Amino acid sequence: MKVHGEQRRTIWPAPARDAVFVIDQRWLPHRLATARLADVDAVATAIREMWVRGAPLIGAAAAYGLALQAGRDAGDTALQAAAQQLRQTRPTAVNLAWALRRMLDRLLPLAPAQRHDAAWAEAERIAQDDVACNEAIGTHGAVLLAAAAQRKSGRLNVLTHCNAGWLATVDWGTALAPIYKARDAGVELHVWVDETRPRNQGASLTAWELAQEGIAHTVIADNAGGHLMQHGEVDLVLVGCDRVTRRGDVCNKIGTYLKALAAHDNGVPFYVAMPLSTLDRSLADGLREIPIEQRSPREVTHIAGLGPEGEVIELQLTPPQSPAANYGFDVTPARLVTGLITERGLMAADEAALAALEHLP
Amino acid sequence: MKVHGEQRRTIWPAPARDAVFVIDQRWLPHRLATARLADVDAVATAIREMWVRGAPLIGAAAAYGLALQAGRDAGDTALQAAAQQLRQTRPTAVNLAWALRRMLDRLLPLAPAQRHDAAWAEAERIAQDDVACNEAIGTHGAVLLAAAAQRKSGRLNVLTHCNAGWLATVDWGTALAPIYKARDAGVELHVWVDETRPRNQGASLTAWELAQEGIAHTVIADNAGGHLMQHGEVDLVLVGCDRVTRRGDVCNKIGTYLKALAAHDNGVPFYVAMPLSTLDRSLADGLREIPIEQRSPREVTHIAGLGPEGEVIELQLTPPQSPAANYGFDVTPARLVTGLITERGLMAADEAALAALEHLP
Repeated sequence: MKVHGEQRRTIWPAPARDAVFVIDQRWLPHRLATARLADVDAVATAIREMWVRGAPLIGAAAAYGLALQAGRDAGDTALQAAAQQLRQTRPTAVNLAWALRRMLDRLLPLAPAQRHDAAWAEAERIAQDDVACNEAIGTHGAVLLAAAAQRKSGRLNVLTHCNAGWLATVDWGTALAPIYKARDAGVELHVWVDETRPRNQGASLTAWELAQEGIAHTVIADNAGGHLMQHGEVDLVLVGCDRVTRRGDVCNKIGTYLKALAAHDNGVPFYVAMPLSTLDRSLADGLREIPIEQRSPREVTHIAGLGPEGEVIELQLTPPQSPAANYGFDVTPARLVTGLITERGLMAADEAALAALEHLP
Repeated sequence: MKVHGEQRRTIWPAPARDAVFVIDQRWLPHRLATARLADVDAVATAIREMWVRGAPLIGAAAAYGLALQAGRDAGDTALQAAAQQLRQTRPTAVNLAWALRRMLDRLLPLAPAQRHDAAWAEAERIAQDDVACNEAIGTHGAVLLAAAAQRKSGRLNVLTHCNAGWLATVDWGTALAPIYKARDAGVELHVWVDETRPRNQGASLTAWELAQEGIAHTVIADNAGGHLMQHGEVDLVLVGCDRVTRRGDVCNKIGTYLKALAAHDNGVPFYVAMPLSTLDRSLADGLREIPIEQRSPREVTHIAGLGPEGEVIELQLTPPQSPAANYGFDVTPARLVTGLITERGLMAADEAALAALEHLP
């Protein structure tokens, strides 16, 4: 999508295949920085420290990480150790494990000498597949948005939580792809952007993306969405996801569940944009079975922003004696999800619908 | 309550009756500052700009504001103009209008020469009544907390939103009074403190109060409460209120409604500490009838905290092109409220129970 009018992606290989470049998202919206990641350690750090984040982008970054490893030592032991290191960086998103498995399934049957070329080709396919998948989600979701817009006068108000835009993927985004596609189709819309504490991915990333693409939006505190829904100011909620169980329970950024409850209480449709790579058939009960990442309390007690002299600095928000806890994700039970928007189309968040996928081409 | 081990109140008159002093809460938790307010303009600014906040404290501050006016010009016109100026500072909390009406009802029937003494005496009574009222809420609420603690092993986990502690009142607090009283009675408890965006009253005020009183607590993002309730980590929710309708709809800090929904969805009791001065019998349907204050978008786009050199500074969080909206309050329908803790005891949040109060001594 566009940055200052120019098409960009979040991740791209160095032509010499000795590194990948990423947008270092820690500095957005205040500064557009790129980082060069030259080995598995660098990729692992970038994922763990959230230079790159978003389930699909994490998967693509991990795939490129294995490709970098294959350029140094493409033996089974080295590749498996690298995969293990990358898999442990973030516990919740399933795409990470999915992309690493896809890479290993492709590489391990090959002779080591063939693995370097194959690894770069497969990582590139994972990235391209992500773009195609998200664009398809956008196309299917835009139909839904256009239909909702037809049922009302005035612009369509969509609420989103966290960042499931192109910055969370290689391009297009998941939850924001339908918004970009609907805009392209002439639907007049406005997005309520949850700031998304503690890391403020809404205020810093979603707001920035939408501003770059010229889409009308308003940043709100995470606390405000219920009030807006009570007063008819939200026509639908559209979020991404980090893992979906075979029953349709949706794990996404902490606070998603609260918005789903408010949507349900006010008759507002609640949609989840879900690449099928996010589906984890091994799990049934999301609340009991999905591991929820706990991150550093410092993300709650401190905050980064643009200081008075144009520099990005960090402030302390809490008293020094007060501990904090930082849960990264929560689980929205399937009963609160109106529908899943996948690259194959809109589907119900239930076990039968998700099981049927397996028997379809 | 205690600050560095010493008993303090949030507001106290100057002995010469030419000013009132307040804790200037804009600098907490980083600095304990007091401000001297010498006239109605200063009091109005302190309320509007939230040097003092919390429905009960706003009421007491406004009463002292009228006492200051009575020392300059105690005529009907001057007092009524001052009351009007003060009433317009914050639209949502009903205690403000209640305290001003109580002052005018006391003063206007008197000869102007008697009004100065009477005004200071009445303002002082309003402050003392607030302390007594909150202490009674604490006593009644502590019974509830002790009973809940008996039903479980280990410490009792209470979640609170915003600051309804002693900093929101003259002393004791509303929602935190039961916690202080229960602690005094030997109940082992721990408080989950919602940081409460956009102004962070939880992270800055509630955390600070609890730390000063030595009560175990953990600061969390507003997004985290639903997840904690899903996992049995919250035994009850206890919040304050800014206005309650005769049907029991509760207006409180934005985001309260989302916590009430999560409590309801997980079978967690949701209690509201309500001084009866907060009851507005003129209103029935809180959602339709309570005016919701919209504050400056800057409270969403910017944030204040403690900088690297120990100074309090403000950072920008959002891209410069992104607008923000800032709703101060939301309404929790009575159906989601387990009970109201008033100075007279625990009662149901429904029209019959609230109507019955009128016929009791």
